[in-house]
Amino acid sequence: MRYKITLAYDGTNFAGFQRQPHMRTIESELTRVVNKMAKNPDPAIVIYGSGRTDAGVHALAQVVHFDMPFNLTADNMRRGLNSMLPMDMEVLKVEIVSQDFHARYDVSGKRYLYRMDLGEFRNPFKRNYTGHWKFPTDVEKINQAAKDLIGEHDFSSFVASGSSARTHYRTIYEAGCRLDKANNELVFEFYGNGFLYNQVRIMVGVLVEIGSGTRPVDDIQRLYRLNDRRAARRTVPASGLYLKHVYYEGDDPKHPTKLPKRQR
Amino acid sequence: MRYKITLAYDGTNFAGFQRQPHMRTIESELTRVVNKMAKNPDPAIVIYGSGRTDAGVHALAQVVHFDMPFNLTADNMRRGLNSMLPMDMEVLKVEIVSQDFHARYDVSGKRYLYRMDLGEFRNPFKRNYTGHWKFPTDVEKINQAAKDLIGEHDFSSFVASGSSARTHYRTIYEAGCRLDKANNELVFEFYGNGFLYNQVRIMVGVLVEIGSGTRPVDDIQRLYRLNDRRAARRTVPASGLYLKHVYYEGDDPKHPTKLPKRQR
Repeated sequence: MRYKITLAYDGTNFAGFQRQPHMRTIESELTRVVNKMAKNPDPAIVIYGSGRTDAGVHALAQVVHFDMPFNLTADNMRRGLNSMLPMDMEVLKVEIVSQDFHARYDVSGKRYLYRMDLGEFRNPFKRNYTGHWKFPTDVEKINQAAKDLIGEHDFSSFVASGSSARTHYRTIYEAGCRLDKANNELVFEFYGNGFLYNQVRIMVGVLVEIGSGTRPVDDIQRLYRLNDRRAARRTVPASGLYLKHVYYEGDDPKHPTKLPKRQR
Repeated sequence: MRYKITLAYDGTNFAGFQRQPHMRTIESELTRVVNKMAKNPDPAIVIYGSGRTDAGVHALAQVVHFDMPFNLTADNMRRGLNSMLPMDMEVLKVEIVSQDFHARYDVSGKRYLYRMDLGEFRNPFKRNYTGHWKFPTDVEKINQAAKDLIGEHDFSSFVASGSSARTHYRTIYEAGCRLDKANNELVFEFYGNGFLYNQVRIMVGVLVEIGSGTRPVDDIQRLYRLNDRRAARRTVPASGLYLKHVYYEGDDPKHPTKLPKRQR
């Protein structure tokens, strides 16, 4: 039986999604719990995620799949996982899916959120949940510049070294920013067919600098032309980044898959 | 020079306010930093807090005082402390006060907040910042019952064992609850001349049970008559409790001190 799991996690105390020896990761916690539920079968059950998140990055709705050697109702699977998972992970939804479904290969898009605290001082309650930007910022300028992100572009100036992607072309469907006055935060949101390593954190770094006037409002076009990672400079902290939604083929008829499977 | 310090802290990773050997506490972090700033004088500088908070309890505005053997402007003191304190503590305000001022003895009142998450499932982002109550709750019933808390009462049924207070009489000026729909939380607020050990967490436990119908709405009057700690049962988790404000003589002319100095 193949299970599709939608889960939230507070990334603060994880060394990211991907399994690493001697490190607490999302993948290793899930692998441990699922194999324990199945009484440690040999070979062990493998967890497939929609993609990695870095250390400190949060998920409001990450998606993984795995195969169980026996049948449980979706509801009992959710209850079982939640009773055994640590408190900083929570399974939100369990679906029984066909053997064709693959949490990574079938992704058609992802949506990310970035929360940037604007407080004059660092806020001890927000340190793990936001980035911090203390310069006056013009949200309209940010949204004007963000329009240049929309569409298919070569994002070579917006990828961290260490990326193994074979192409840096990605398509962004939505990119914008709003001021959350109640929390004194900028909230950025990006929806695209896929994102490169650190791409969202680099885009937010460029956008806040545009918003504060240290870059011209058309600087994103210059960065496309430069094709040089160093030009974008700043990578904002992982703590403000949230994976908000993973789209699968058919989820959003307006934006069917455009990326070759290996590149998602 | 005597300094009055108002500070916020995320209590998650502290073993409470009070100094304890080999434990990370608010008092020990402050003591370390202040003595380092003063180049470790002998005798060491002592920190006086307005009162303790338990492990996991947060402060939006705790108050302490200490004496420095030299003079710094309030602004430089704030900057200096914040540059040396850990990220889960933040000095919000520094005031230079007379040698008469005492952070504990001069307290005239305290205000506490309690955040109770109402989500069906535990939320991994809220586990350290709220309590959790998953039963249907009537806020009007809670507010009706909370009126019985207002005034001077013997709170013996609302104090945890281990209290060393000489009297259990306290006066509550304000007690109430509102539904924060955006966050799906009950937010309780209490203002009084002083609170006993665990009193707020026990009062909230009684109030949510009243709100969910497992206690009658006039149960607080019965608890006053019983004078028995065991009758109140539940102590809600420390994670939802925030020290919101400490009042000193003169801060609130409507409510001057009523408690003998030793009992605050």
